[in-house]
Amino acid sequence: MKQVPLLPTERIDDLLTHNLKIIQSEQVFSFSLDAILLARFCSVAPKGRMIDLCTGNGVVPLLLTTRTRAEIWGVEIQERLADMAVRNTLLNGLEERLHMIQGDLRTIVQTLGHGQFDTVTVNPPYLPVPNGEQNINEHIAAARHEIHCTLEDVITASAKLVKSGGKVAMVHRATRLVDIICLMRQYRLEPKRIRYVHARAGEEAMMVLVEGLKDGKPEIRTLAPLIVYDENQEYCQELKEIYYGGRTSLM
Amino acid sequence: MKQVPLLPTERIDDLLTHNLKIIQSEQVFSFSLDAILLARFCSVAPKGRMIDLCTGNGVVPLLLTTRTRAEIWGVEIQERLADMAVRNTLLNGLEERLHMIQGDLRTIVQTLGHGQFDTVTVNPPYLPVPNGEQNINEHIAAARHEIHCTLEDVITASAKLVKSGGKVAMVHRATRLVDIICLMRQYRLEPKRIRYVHARAGEEAMMVLVEGLKDGKPEIRTLAPLIVYDENQEYCQELKEIYYGGRTSLM
Repeated sequence: MKQVPLLPTERIDDLLTHNLKIIQSEQVFSFSLDAILLARFCSVAPKGRMIDLCTGNGVVPLLLTTRTRAEIWGVEIQERLADMAVRNTLLNGLEERLHMIQGDLRTIVQTLGHGQFDTVTVNPPYLPVPNGEQNINEHIAAARHEIHCTLEDVITASAKLVKSGGKVAMVHRATRLVDIICLMRQYRLEPKRIRYVHARAGEEAMMVLVEGLKDGKPEIRTLAPLIVYDENQEYCQELKEIYYGGRTSLM
Repeated sequence: MKQVPLLPTERIDDLLTHNLKIIQSEQVFSFSLDAILLARFCSVAPKGRMIDLCTGNGVVPLLLTTRTRAEIWGVEIQERLADMAVRNTLLNGLEERLHMIQGDLRTIVQTLGHGQFDTVTVNPPYLPVPNGEQNINEHIAAARHEIHCTLEDVITASAKLVKSGGKVAMVHRATRLVDIICLMRQYRLEPKRIRYVHARAGEEAMMVLVEGLKDGKPEIRTLAPLIVYDENQEYCQELKEIYYGGRTSLM
């Protein structure tokens, strides 16, 4: 493991797979279950070029290195987080395969070019911009709320970056399903694969994973639901394998 | 039970709830699990006016009488099936509450009027019109294939018949999810509630139940999945209660 500087409140956590480590901070950014599910649900290009938008501290690209030899870009609008993502790349000695850049997804296609990526992944902010009360800090607020980009911004950016026949995978609140599906089709990212995440059996879905195919034909597969906790309030077998067992795919 | 004439190949089956009986025929039309799920999933108007499109032998309206005192219309394009639906109404002595009519859903709004119904239910034909091979009989073919109406016909008809604030519930192949969702939103039937039907735990969804609200605001609830068979290949508890236990709602 390389030596990289840590800023105040930061710590190094173990990603529990392939000896990957990650710098995070409760005050700035720490990854969630959603990011892990996205990195394990999305299709990967065996080689080629992949890109992760709203990458935060780069957790999704880091996890993707266990599934592919592709080069992976990460884009993060917040300088403080993009800097963490760069240090996470160095920490794991992955600077030849990972390229973490600070940028705005609404304009990044001007730098990176149209249709240059085989896949796009994105774990966007979920919540509408709050009106009035906004007592959490700016980093957390920007990661959670649609301050820097709307869902439509995320989907149009993805549709521009991915090549025809390439794939775009997203994790989002299950309540936003209709917006996601309609926007994806509108921007020629035909939804082809979907998986719901339920906290417990018998409960409504909280999250949804959706993958679209650029210029794909209609017809979607709805995978078996992912139930996070079993009746003993422990992670289900599938998640245990993902977290502790070295399993890298949730397809 | 009233005396009604049976035609060749017809038999009388027991709907196993509220002493309801139903005339059907393997050669002409017999109801499926999908119809039962739709009748138990959809919202009902406690009173008022409900309508079921593609009603076949009228199984959905018959089952709905166990959940509501509303008047219920059924529309079926095939004369042979509409006649069965009329006889099923008489058989159960429900002629004051059920109105089974032969008609084409693409033009029925001209007779029944715009926005005159509190709810619409529909179990439409699932399959595209086959090109070439069509060896099954005309009645079965019309119930299964989009011969007399496309999915868009079904959704536009529903959107015209239902009043603002009313609900439209549909059962369909899960693979058609994207078409259903996008067409519903396009015709101002905002999808609000969805439930997937999986044959077994761990398998992909085969069917999907979707309910839209005319002029509703975006935000959908994805209910817990319905798993049809347990590990012993028996109906799950929820379906046993529906089939044999007098339970009338799958909400």
